[in-house]
Amino acid sequence: MSKPITLYTAATLNGYSISIALEELRVPYDLKVIALKEKEQKSEWFLKINPNGRIPAIVDHKNNDFPVSESSAILLYLAQHYDPDNKLSYDPVKEANLHSEVLQWIFFAHGGLGPMQGEANHFLLWTPEKIPYGIKRYQDETKRLYSVIEKRLEGREWLVGSHYSMADIKAYPWIAQKVGIIEHSEFPNIQVWMSRIKARPETWKGHGVPERPYYLEQ
Amino acid sequence: MSKPITLYTAATLNGYSISIALEELRVPYDLKVIALKEKEQKSEWFLKINPNGRIPAIVDHKNNDFPVSESSAILLYLAQHYDPDNKLSYDPVKEANLHSEVLQWIFFAHGGLGPMQGEANHFLLWTPEKIPYGIKRYQDETKRLYSVIEKRLEGREWLVGSHYSMADIKAYPWIAQKVGIIEHSEFPNIQVWMSRIKARPETWKGHGVPERPYYLEQ
Repeated sequence: MSKPITLYTAATLNGYSISIALEELRVPYDLKVIALKEKEQKSEWFLKINPNGRIPAIVDHKNNDFPVSESSAILLYLAQHYDPDNKLSYDPVKEANLHSEVLQWIFFAHGGLGPMQGEANHFLLWTPEKIPYGIKRYQDETKRLYSVIEKRLEGREWLVGSHYSMADIKAYPWIAQKVGIIEHSEFPNIQVWMSRIKARPETWKGHGVPERPYYLEQ
Repeated sequence: MSKPITLYTAATLNGYSISIALEELRVPYDLKVIALKEKEQKSEWFLKINPNGRIPAIVDHKNNDFPVSESSAILLYLAQHYDPDNKLSYDPVKEANLHSEVLQWIFFAHGGLGPMQGEANHFLLWTPEKIPYGIKRYQDETKRLYSVIEKRLEGREWLVGSHYSMADIKAYPWIAQKVGIIEHSEFPNIQVWMSRIKARPETWKGHGVPERPYYLEQ
């Protein structure tokens, strides 16, 4: 039987969130690794799936090959269509406030953590010459955002409610990577939360698709 | 009768999206302007509403004073609780694919347009000395994102489906501001879309809360 989902991804922090969610939900998927170095994400065929030319994206073959892009929109799509028991989500109607909290933390990560840590990585690693202003600006902001999560996790096992959710899955790959001057040891609540997440076999499996990042020691 | 919503905002591009949505939905709200220059958004009382210390935020008095932050999470909250006729949204169950498309474009704006144009503004206006690399990087990326929207609007009146939605409301204030080298005249589809949005009386009203931005000529 053919698999319902095709996942277009690469070993990036946004990509991992989707393979983690698919593994946790035990949704069968075909994996298509996009060659970022060859700019395959900007190729004509891929732009038909995501006009923004970025991974990850999925196509849902059980829904007339409907394409979904933007990592967080994919997580919410999977929550709606492939998580009938709300294993990684909260019922949008019956648990509306928890559902909203999941959205709030997903947007926090999607508009803050992701872009700011992404820029921190860029200025640390990819500029032709070192630009101290950029290096400092984005590391400082990333660290501030970690401190918001650290405070949120005070007395909590998970970012929202009583179980692991898409909010944790969205934030976790970024925090597991961290950047530059940031030390996980400065954030004890985050450390405990991370070890709880890392111990989940399905998350561990998904965090190795298409390959495991170097900073995750076994 | 007391109003259901209190809106904490300021004259920023994220702030406008919420006042526009509230006006369009004709939801009565009390306005609390946050003094960004005095860093009121980092004050203890406000951090209880949004632990990330940023505007906009709302409190819903009809829902036990439930606080919602992150502009896009507020838009989705208003769609769920204050838009029973789906004036600015699509039914998440009956029109699930359109609902997902709204999410995809909201996340595109929330994680791309917002942060990148925000950084373009920062490097153009706020660095102690000019940093050409940063100025170019973020203007170029913002322009690329506009070109993705321009292409999306080819043959379409709105970003998603057949009517104005939260996706348009999320992107519009950013695009109306634009930055630096970007000229709206380079993007004819965006220009028509913008004039369509600007002509909506409720959106125009919301775009003046708490005050109208200088670049919107009457």
